[in-house]
Amino acid sequence: MDCGLAGSRRSGMTVVEMADKSEFAAPGAVAELEEGSELTPKFDGDGLLTCVATDAASGDVLMVAHMNAEALEKTIATGEAWYFSRSRQTLWKKGEESGHTQRVVEMRVDCDQDAVWIKVEQNIAACHTGRRSCFYRAVPLGQKGGAVKLEFRDARVFDPKLAYRAKD
Amino acid sequence: MDCGLAGSRRSGMTVVEMADKSEFAAPGAVAELEEGSELTPKFDGDGLLTCVATDAASGDVLMVAHMNAEALEKTIATGEAWYFSRSRQTLWKKGEESGHTQRVVEMRVDCDQDAVWIKVEQNIAACHTGRRSCFYRAVPLGQKGGAVKLEFRDARVFDPKLAYRAKD
Repeated sequence: MDCGLAGSRRSGMTVVEMADKSEFAAPGAVAELEEGSELTPKFDGDGLLTCVATDAASGDVLMVAHMNAEALEKTIATGEAWYFSRSRQTLWKKGEESGHTQRVVEMRVDCDQDAVWIKVEQNIAACHTGRRSCFYRAVPLGQKGGAVKLEFRDARVFDPKLAYRAKD
Repeated sequence: MDCGLAGSRRSGMTVVEMADKSEFAAPGAVAELEEGSELTPKFDGDGLLTCVATDAASGDVLMVAHMNAEALEKTIATGEAWYFSRSRQTLWKKGEESGHTQRVVEMRVDCDQDAVWIKVEQNIAACHTGRRSCFYRAVPLGQKGGAVKLEFRDARVFDPKLAYRAKD
């Protein structure tokens, strides 16, 4: 998670305070959340939703990250993916530094409105390690106990050293 | 989230205590997490990973839920999806009550090993509301401010009143 901005806080990044007010109405009872026709996001104790981004063309899961109210509002308003980094406590636009932006083709919300799914047109790649998807390793099934060896499936499509500026 | 088991704790459900020990090695430094070939899950403060389940045939996101170490171990060992419910603090096998099981075709882990993606063969439907996916409502894009109206996209494929037993 928090993929797409490697390392710790950088100079020049967009840093905003947590939004005190949200444009969204507070979530109601279960029946309203599940069958209602108004978006009333159920943010967690940290003010966040889980967001799954999939490739609109292939259906592959590209990344899992988080949105606060402001990131959700900006994503809805602009059709470009914005997230909130838990580690850096900052709002960030995907591709802000690398240029690897995500244009949102469709957004969905889940039954209890604590997760959103965005289908995106991914420019170049989603993962800061250089792979198109953050999920570049398979976990073999059928093993009972012992260390589980991962299988690398996806090659790098860019050099992360070139895409992200050196740390100051 | 926690979809597939509607309502509060039921009689007859599998209830286990949080596993004290995990078969997985502790996560290492960032380089090991990202480029290592051993599964060393980075569970959060509550001992959980985020899990995204997609339909192996359509690529649609079916649900977002959580796994503790035991759920992850059981999913890997059996090839059937197990989760951990945050609201009920219980391990549960998907479809335990409804019969709407998930056979895992492939499992992937993300760059920092705090999320897994499973491609599944979903029996009937993933969502306890009766839809195949929990993400049955679209969020229209381009709106700046004001209440956001959701658009229902997916019809029910089963009657939740019949699939889940009445509360005792």
